[in-house]
Amino acid sequence: MNSEKPIKFIDKNKNSLLKDLQTLIHQPSISAKNEGIKECSVLVSKMLKKSGIKSEILRLGKNAAPLVYGEVKSKNNPNTTLLFYNHYDVQPVEPLELWDDPPFSGKIIGNKIFGRGASDDKGELITRIKAVESYLKTYGDVPCNVKFVIEGEEENGSENIGTYLKKYKKKFSCDGVVWEFGYVDQKNRPIIGLGMKGLLYVELTAKESVRDVHSSFAVIIKNPAWRLIQALNTMRDENGKILIKGWYDDIKPLTKNDIKLIQKEPFDADGFKKEYGVKNFVGNKNSLDAKKALVSGVTCNIAGIDSGYTGDGAKTVLPGSAKVKIDFRLVPNMDPKKLIKLLEKHLRVNGFGDITINVLNAEAAARTNPNEKIVNTVCESTKKIFGDYVLNISNAGTGPMHAFTNILSVPCISVGASYIFCRMHSPNEFAKIDLLHKTTKNICVLLEKFSRS
Amino acid sequence: MNSEKPIKFIDKNKNSLLKDLQTLIHQPSISAKNEGIKECSVLVSKMLKKSGIKSEILRLGKNAAPLVYGEVKSKNNPNTTLLFYNHYDVQPVEPLELWDDPPFSGKIIGNKIFGRGASDDKGELITRIKAVESYLKTYGDVPCNVKFVIEGEEENGSENIGTYLKKYKKKFSCDGVVWEFGYVDQKNRPIIGLGMKGLLYVELTAKESVRDVHSSFAVIIKNPAWRLIQALNTMRDENGKILIKGWYDDIKPLTKNDIKLIQKEPFDADGFKKEYGVKNFVGNKNSLDAKKALVSGVTCNIAGIDSGYTGDGAKTVLPGSAKVKIDFRLVPNMDPKKLIKLLEKHLRVNGFGDITINVLNAEAAARTNPNEKIVNTVCESTKKIFGDYVLNISNAGTGPMHAFTNILSVPCISVGASYIFCRMHSPNEFAKIDLLHKTTKNICVLLEKFSRS
Repeated sequence: MNSEKPIKFIDKNKNSLLKDLQTLIHQPSISAKNEGIKECSVLVSKMLKKSGIKSEILRLGKNAAPLVYGEVKSKNNPNTTLLFYNHYDVQPVEPLELWDDPPFSGKIIGNKIFGRGASDDKGELITRIKAVESYLKTYGDVPCNVKFVIEGEEENGSENIGTYLKKYKKKFSCDGVVWEFGYVDQKNRPIIGLGMKGLLYVELTAKESVRDVHSSFAVIIKNPAWRLIQALNTMRDENGKILIKGWYDDIKPLTKNDIKLIQKEPFDADGFKKEYGVKNFVGNKNSLDAKKALVSGVTCNIAGIDSGYTGDGAKTVLPGSAKVKIDFRLVPNMDPKKLIKLLEKHLRVNGFGDITINVLNAEAAARTNPNEKIVNTVCESTKKIFGDYVLNISNAGTGPMHAFTNILSVPCISVGASYIFCRMHSPNEFAKIDLLHKTTKNICVLLEKFSRS
Repeated sequence: MNSEKPIKFIDKNKNSLLKDLQTLIHQPSISAKNEGIKECSVLVSKMLKKSGIKSEILRLGKNAAPLVYGEVKSKNNPNTTLLFYNHYDVQPVEPLELWDDPPFSGKIIGNKIFGRGASDDKGELITRIKAVESYLKTYGDVPCNVKFVIEGEEENGSENIGTYLKKYKKKFSCDGVVWEFGYVDQKNRPIIGLGMKGLLYVELTAKESVRDVHSSFAVIIKNPAWRLIQALNTMRDENGKILIKGWYDDIKPLTKNDIKLIQKEPFDADGFKKEYGVKNFVGNKNSLDAKKALVSGVTCNIAGIDSGYTGDGAKTVLPGSAKVKIDFRLVPNMDPKKLIKLLEKHLRVNGFGDITINVLNAEAAARTNPNEKIVNTVCESTKKIFGDYVLNISNAGTGPMHAFTNILSVPCISVGASYIFCRMHSPNEFAKIDLLHKTTKNICVLLEKFSRS
């Protein structure tokens, strides 16, 4: 089979890609709120079938989002299998008032298609589906076996992906995994990623009075918002350093090879600052330190804090409780379970034992060895289609890569269609249409090269 | 005229009081949201007229809530005037999920009537109206001239009451003011109040990125929630002491007479703790220190804090901004304008000059001299109806008393029907029905005694 032919086929089917992506965007699927999850799983499974991919919906129980499975067996090459991991769920859409169009519009303006999930991850998913569809429609076969594992709770911590992988270990067996997303930088260079950070996401709650009361009582009744703030101040210094004892103990320093790869990565610090409207990086980092931090930095980020009256105008209230959502990004070798214990101990030792901890997500980090064959395969196909690429040893974000590398014991590699400033997780998320088409081509070539590797 | 007769009249009209109070509660009038304000002013003015009180609605401009004025001239005693100050607006009703019935239900269960405003201040207002109505219906006259000043933005800082008082200084001229509310303690003793604390209510906002972004960028983009928390930690210590330089400079210590009066005040510390579900008071205060704090303590209370994602589940977001609402309670001699400058300077000097300050309310404190005649009058009538009373030199809460004592140059005194644990400003606010009736009687007797003082 010649990898050029399906590329031409794709060029003729631009409209079907966009139309199907719009169909996916129109269907809300917010895992954090269990909104539209079941409906979206059915929609995705039907879409796979329409493209000629055998599909079924797998379920674990009431509390787990259904997982959409897809499979095409290769007639020519039945001994090699590539698995596409994606997710059909999306982030919440708040704050609604900052969207120019409704969040599920799928509106196309020039080279952009807008909507929650346009990039993350419905846009990426559609490139994988269309690549496989193009082979099937043109040749009636695929270069190697293809499997799809499309989960429905990635944006809510992928709580059940490990259980799914264990239960369906044989069904999902493969020789390599193409990860759910990949960034493309300002110069149209895909960033090929070999790792993901881990994440520990907790909610801390301080309570005092049984309810919100009149704030005139603040002279004698303690304020849980103040208490939470005092506790938070013991956890992190003003430069972002985490003050929880033992937090950094298991972290291995970057190797010389790691640093070499990081140095090779382009990074437009000024462009980045301009895009986000910030003057300086945390701790006044220079460009190289910023790059190192994106690969190997750990954080204690306040994702949300809420207490008392937060509407318009003045309400003189003493809150009964205060809540903060914190996400800690982790790097390889840090054990989330151990870190939860360190956090508990920290609060207790500092006199904040009454503050409750609710763990919403705990995922370890993962990295694939740069010497794995699949790395070379993906680098070659990407260079062929895009002319250039960047090799990144770890993405700054988190995904359940650790579950795949550990349970399926295969290398994972990340490559995709998401423009680096695509407003992922933010209002007015979009995907660039040309990148969607080029990435579809890239997946086509990659499949062909992988089948021969 | 004999003050006993109108009391009997009131006893026969219990249902009309409750029915009219329900009518007032059913009408939302949330000044912080400008919800139902105009409608409620019309309703109150009509209710005054129905009770035989001449009424008109005064206006200042688009941004000021209308003020309902009422007046009855005494045929027998046209040279003495008592003014009732009340408000028809109420606090916001959030959090809605904690109400057992809808907030504007006016539902009656046993001796309680429930709903936002049941006590604060529609319940108090109805006692004044019904007392005057009882005189008019029984005698066709009142013991002295009566005036009603019923404003519509007390719960939002009474921004325009000073302007109203200045503009209508002659119309509102009087010999004394009965304040808008008064607590009744667990032993059915009305607390007669001679003062109110002041209030400085500000919103502080920290901004960093132009929008909420993916929290994986927290390694390099600063978090405004953390920044706000760092700033807050410079403002107050864990025992509630305000760390803003000069904050305490103008406060005069309590006099020996003040402390004597405070010592006389009953205070059921254990009952208070039980009611609010708290173990210890701020700074482990004992009962006397708690009483002193309620009269003369100043606070820096977080009334609300809000940043990032605060919904259900986990959203990995780095907030673009963070906002906190703070109310500072003030005591006599503290100048809110000066304090705003101290706060600005504090933030600037501590390196937080980028945090913006929005002043939502600034009111000075006020106290009436215990030797004023009206104090004795109110104490006597209250003792007659309730058998006992407590004299309190300052309420822990805030009201625009300073505007009345300064502009009208008359003593103000607070007496009313609100049970001390009536959930004012909180879900399930209620009024005790027997206290509403007894307070109506008290106002009747007080009017009669005041006319002869």
